[in-house]
Amino acid sequence: MEKEYTQELLLDFGRDGNTLVPVITQDFNSGKILILAYANRDAFNATIQSGYATFFSRSRNEIWKKGLTSGNLLKVIEIRINCEQNSLLFLVTQEGQGACHATKPDGTPQETCFYRRIIPGDKLEMVPE
Amino acid sequence: MEKEYTQELLLDFGRDGNTLVPVITQDFNSGKILILAYANRDAFNATIQSGYATFFSRSRNEIWKKGLTSGNLLKVIEIRINCEQNSLLFLVTQEGQGACHATKPDGTPQETCFYRRIIPGDKLEMVPE
Repeated sequence: MEKEYTQELLLDFGRDGNTLVPVITQDFNSGKILILAYANRDAFNATIQSGYATFFSRSRNEIWKKGLTSGNLLKVIEIRINCEQNSLLFLVTQEGQGACHATKPDGTPQETCFYRRIIPGDKLEMVPE
Repeated sequence: MEKEYTQELLLDFGRDGNTLVPVITQDFNSGKILILAYANRDAFNATIQSGYATFFSRSRNEIWKKGLTSGNLLKVIEIRINCEQNSLLFLVTQEGQGACHATKPDGTPQETCFYRRIIPGDKLEMVPE
Protein backbone atom coordinates (compact mmCIF):
# COMPACT_ATOMS: atom_id res chain seq x y z
CA MET A 1 0.00 0.00 0.00
CA GLU A 2 1.59 3.24 -1.11
CA LYS A 3 1.60 6.05 1.40
CA GLU A 4 0.50 8.51 -1.28
CA TYR A 5 -2.73 6.72 -2.15
CA THR A 6 -3.92 4.99 0.99
CA GLN A 7 -6.75 6.14 3.22
CA GLU A 8 -4.87 4.81 6.25
CA LEU A 9 -2.89 7.17 8.47
CA LEU A 10 0.68 5.82 8.39
CA LEU A 11 2.43 8.64 10.21
CA ASP A 12 5.64 7.16 11.62
CA PHE A 13 6.94 8.45 14.95
CA GLY A 14 9.40 5.57 15.31
CA ARG A 15 9.33 2.68 17.73
CA ASP A 16 9.77 4.92 20.74
CA GLY A 17 7.30 7.54 19.49
CA ASN A 18 9.95 10.25 19.54
CA THR A 19 10.83 10.61 15.88
CA LEU A 20 9.97 14.25 15.19
CA VAL A 21 7.65 15.18 12.35
CA PRO A 22 7.68 18.79 11.10
CA VAL A 23 4.38 20.63 11.44
CA ILE A 24 3.47 23.67 9.38
CA THR A 25 0.90 25.81 11.15
CA GLN A 26 -1.25 27.99 8.93
CA ASP A 27 -3.96 30.46 9.90
CA PHE A 28 -7.23 29.01 8.62
CA ASN A 29 -8.67 32.44 7.88
CA SER A 30 -5.77 34.50 6.53
CA GLY A 31 -3.71 31.69 5.01
CA LYS A 32 -0.58 33.07 6.72
CA ILE A 33 2.07 30.63 7.86
CA LEU A 34 2.42 31.14 11.60
CA ILE A 35 5.12 28.73 12.75
CA LEU A 36 7.04 25.64 11.81
CA ALA A 37 7.39 23.29 14.76
CA TYR A 38 7.71 19.56 15.46
CA ALA A 39 5.54 16.82 16.90
CA ASN A 40 6.34 13.46 18.43
CA ARG A 41 3.62 10.87 19.04
CA ASP A 42 2.58 12.34 22.39
CA ALA A 43 2.33 15.86 20.95
CA PHE A 44 0.26 14.61 18.02
CA ASN A 45 -2.08 12.67 20.29
CA ALA A 46 -2.41 15.65 22.64
CA THR A 47 -3.34 17.83 19.67
CA ILE A 48 -6.06 15.40 18.59
CA GLN A 49 -7.40 15.00 22.11
CA SER A 50 -7.34 18.67 23.14
CA GLY A 51 -8.12 20.28 19.79
CA TYR A 52 -5.23 22.70 20.35
CA ALA A 53 -1.84 22.72 18.61
CA THR A 54 0.67 20.89 20.75
CA PHE A 55 4.29 20.44 19.72
CA PHE A 56 7.50 18.92 21.01
CA SER A 57 10.00 21.59 22.02
CA ARG A 58 13.46 20.60 20.83
CA SER A 59 15.13 23.25 22.99
CA ARG A 60 13.29 22.31 26.20
CA ASN A 61 12.95 18.63 25.28
CA GLU A 62 9.32 18.47 26.36
CA ILE A 63 5.73 18.57 25.18
CA TRP A 64 4.66 22.13 24.55
CA LYS A 65 1.04 23.23 24.30
CA LYS A 66 1.50 26.30 22.13
CA GLY A 67 0.29 29.46 23.83
CA LEU A 68 -0.29 27.94 27.27
CA THR A 69 1.90 30.66 28.81
CA SER A 70 1.16 33.53 26.43
CA GLY A 71 -2.56 32.89 26.04
CA ASN A 72 -2.26 32.56 22.30
CA LEU A 73 -3.65 29.07 21.95
CA LEU A 74 -4.01 27.75 18.42
CA LYS A 75 -7.31 25.96 17.86
CA VAL A 76 -6.91 23.21 15.28
CA ILE A 77 -9.60 23.22 12.61
CA GLU A 78 -8.11 20.56 10.36
CA ILE A 79 -4.94 18.47 10.10
CA ARG A 80 -3.56 17.70 6.65
CA ILE A 81 -0.77 15.31 5.80
CA ASN A 82 1.62 15.24 2.87
CA CYS A 83 1.96 12.61 0.15
CA GLU A 84 4.78 10.73 1.87
CA GLN A 85 3.13 10.99 5.30
CA ASN A 86 6.18 12.55 6.91
CA SER A 87 4.98 16.10 7.54
CA LEU A 88 1.80 17.74 8.83
CA LEU A 89 -0.16 20.90 8.22
CA PHE A 90 -2.30 22.27 11.06
CA LEU A 91 -4.97 24.74 9.97
CA VAL A 92 -5.70 26.84 13.04
CA THR A 93 -7.47 29.87 14.41
CA GLN A 94 -5.71 32.10 16.90
CA GLU A 95 -7.14 32.95 20.31
CA GLY A 96 -4.57 35.60 21.19
CA GLN A 97 -2.54 38.44 19.75
CA GLY A 98 0.28 36.72 17.92
CA ALA A 99 1.75 33.26 17.48
CA CYS A 100 5.43 34.19 17.78
CA HIS A 101 7.50 34.69 20.91
CA ALA A 102 9.32 37.56 19.20
CA THR A 103 7.84 41.01 19.51
CA LYS A 104 7.32 43.99 17.25
CA PRO A 105 9.03 47.29 18.01
CA ASP A 106 5.91 48.35 19.93
CA GLY A 107 6.21 45.32 22.23
CA THR A 108 3.24 43.33 20.93
CA PRO A 109 3.85 39.78 19.65
CA GLN A 110 4.60 39.13 16.01
CA GLU A 111 1.58 37.49 14.40
CA THR A 112 3.80 35.00 12.58
CA CYS A 113 7.35 33.73 13.08
CA PHE A 114 8.07 34.54 9.41
CA TYR A 115 8.10 38.34 9.80
CA ARG A 116 11.38 38.89 7.92
CA ARG A 117 12.47 38.27 4.36
CA ILE A 118 15.90 37.76 2.89
CA ILE A 119 17.29 40.54 0.71
CA PRO A 120 20.53 40.75 -1.27
CA GLY A 121 23.78 40.88 0.68
CA ASP A 122 22.66 38.24 3.22
CA LYS A 123 20.49 40.80 4.96
CA LEU A 124 16.97 40.66 6.38
CA GLU A 125 14.16 43.16 6.35
CA MET A 126 10.71 43.20 7.92
CA VAL A 127 7.84 42.01 5.73
CA PRO A 128 5.37 44.90 5.37
CA GLU A 129 2.13 44.16 7.26
CA MET B 1 23.04 39.74 18.65
CA GLU B 2 19.76 37.87 18.92
CA LYS B 3 18.66 35.94 15.88
CA GLU B 4 15.10 37.25 16.28
CA TYR B 5 15.99 40.91 16.01
CA THR B 6 19.03 41.16 13.77
CA GLN B 7 19.04 42.27 10.15
CA GLU B 8 21.85 39.81 9.41
CA LEU B 9 21.09 36.46 7.79
CA LEU B 10 22.41 33.88 10.27
CA LEU B 11 21.05 30.73 8.63
CA ASP B 12 23.23 27.89 9.86
CA PHE B 13 23.92 24.98 7.53
CA GLY B 14 26.71 23.65 9.74
CA ARG B 15 30.43 23.58 9.09
CA ASP B 16 30.09 21.23 6.12
CA GLY B 17 27.05 23.04 4.70
CA ASN B 18 24.93 19.92 4.92
CA THR B 19 22.78 20.60 7.94
CA LEU B 20 19.27 20.48 6.49
CA VAL B 21 16.87 23.35 7.03
CA PRO B 22 13.14 22.74 6.47
CA VAL B 23 11.56 24.85 3.72
CA ILE B 24 7.84 25.53 3.53
CA THR B 25 6.79 26.31 -0.03
CA GLN B 26 3.65 28.40 -0.41
CA ASP B 27 1.90 29.54 -3.57
CA PHE B 28 2.28 33.32 -3.69
CA ASN B 29 -1.12 33.80 -5.32
CA SER B 30 -3.40 31.25 -3.67
CA GLY B 31 -1.66 31.00 -0.30
CA LYS B 32 -1.79 27.21 -0.54
CA ILE B 33 1.03 25.20 1.02
CA LEU B 34 2.55 23.17 -1.80
CA ILE B 35 5.35 21.14 -0.26
CA LEU B 36 7.62 20.85 2.74
CA ALA B 37 11.19 20.06 1.71
CA TYR B 38 14.74 20.64 2.91
CA ALA B 39 17.71 22.74 1.85
CA ASN B 40 21.42 22.46 2.53
CA ARG B 41 23.77 25.33 1.75
CA ASP B 42 24.20 24.36 -1.90
CA ALA B 43 20.45 24.09 -2.44
CA PHE B 44 19.86 27.46 -0.80
CA ASN B 45 22.56 29.12 -2.90
CA ALA B 46 21.21 27.50 -6.07
CA THR B 47 17.76 28.87 -5.24
CA ILE B 48 19.12 32.38 -4.84
CA GLN B 49 21.21 32.17 -7.99
CA SER B 50 18.62 30.54 -10.26
CA GLY B 51 15.48 32.11 -8.86
CA TYR B 52 13.85 28.66 -8.77
CA ALA B 53 13.13 26.50 -5.72
CA THR B 54 15.94 24.01 -5.25
CA PHE B 55 16.00 21.50 -2.43
CA PHE B 56 18.15 18.70 -1.08
CA SER B 57 16.53 15.31 -1.66
CA ARG B 58 16.96 13.16 1.43
CA SER B 59 15.92 10.01 -0.41
CA ARG B 60 18.24 10.52 -3.38
CA ASN B 61 20.91 12.35 -1.33
CA GLU B 62 21.39 15.03 -3.95
CA ILE B 63 20.50 18.57 -4.96
CA TRP B 64 17.07 18.64 -6.54
CA LYS B 65 15.80 21.50 -8.69
CA LYS B 66 12.08 21.06 -8.12
CA GLY B 67 10.20 20.40 -11.36
CA LEU B 68 13.25 19.92 -13.56
CA THR B 69 11.85 16.56 -14.71
CA SER B 70 8.12 17.30 -14.50
CA GLY B 71 8.26 20.84 -15.89
CA ASN B 72 6.61 22.25 -12.80
CA LEU B 73 9.35 24.67 -11.80
CA LEU B 74 8.62 26.87 -8.81
CA LYS B 75 9.67 30.47 -9.36
CA VAL B 76 10.70 32.07 -6.09
CA ILE B 77 9.15 35.48 -5.47
CA GLU B 78 10.35 35.95 -1.92
CA ILE B 79 12.18 34.03 0.80
CA ARG B 80 11.13 34.53 4.41
CA ILE B 81 12.89 33.24 7.49
CA ASN B 82 11.57 32.45 10.96
CA CYS B 83 12.42 34.11 14.26
CA GLU B 84 15.07 31.57 15.22
CA GLN B 85 16.54 31.47 11.71
CA ASN B 86 16.20 27.71 11.42
CA SER B 87 13.44 27.36 8.83
CA LEU B 88 12.54 29.03 5.55
CA LEU B 89 9.39 29.98 3.66
CA PHE B 90 9.57 30.18 -0.13
CA LEU B 91 6.76 32.16 -1.75
CA VAL B 92 6.50 30.84 -5.29
CA THR B 93 4.53 30.84 -8.50
CA GLN B 94 4.00 27.60 -10.37
CA GLU B 95 4.97 27.11 -14.00
CA GLY B 96 3.32 23.74 -14.46
CA GLN B 97 0.29 21.72 -13.52
CA GLY B 98 0.96 20.62 -9.99
CA ALA B 99 3.76 20.63 -7.43
CA CYS B 100 3.32 17.07 -6.12
CA HIS B 101 4.65 13.83 -7.59
CA ALA B 102 1.42 12.12 -6.57
CA THR B 103 -1.45 12.17 -9.02
CA LYS B 104 -5.19 12.64 -8.85
CA PRO B 105 -7.54 9.82 -9.92
CA ASP B 106 -7.59 11.38 -13.42
CA GLY B 107 -3.79 11.09 -13.70
CA THR B 108 -2.94 14.79 -13.43
CA PRO B 109 -0.55 15.90 -10.68
CA GLN B 110 -1.85 16.99 -7.31
CA GLU B 111 -1.46 20.76 -6.98
CA THR B 112 -0.16 20.40 -3.43
CA CYS B 113 1.38 17.55 -1.43
CA PHE B 114 -1.16 18.23 1.33
CA TYR B 115 -4.20 16.84 -0.52
CA ARG B 116 -5.46 14.66 2.33
CA ARG B 117 -6.71 15.41 5.82
CA ILE B 118 -6.84 13.25 8.90
CA ILE B 119 -10.26 12.11 10.08
CA PRO B 120 -11.30 10.10 13.15
CA GLY B 121 -10.19 6.47 13.32
CA ASP B 122 -6.70 7.19 11.96
CA LYS B 123 -8.09 7.52 8.45
CA LEU B 124 -7.44 9.98 5.63
CA GLU B 125 -9.76 11.61 3.15
CA MET B 126 -9.18 13.89 0.19
CA VAL B 127 -9.44 17.63 0.84
CA PRO B 128 -12.24 18.98 -1.40
CA GLU B 129 -10.80 21.19 -4.16
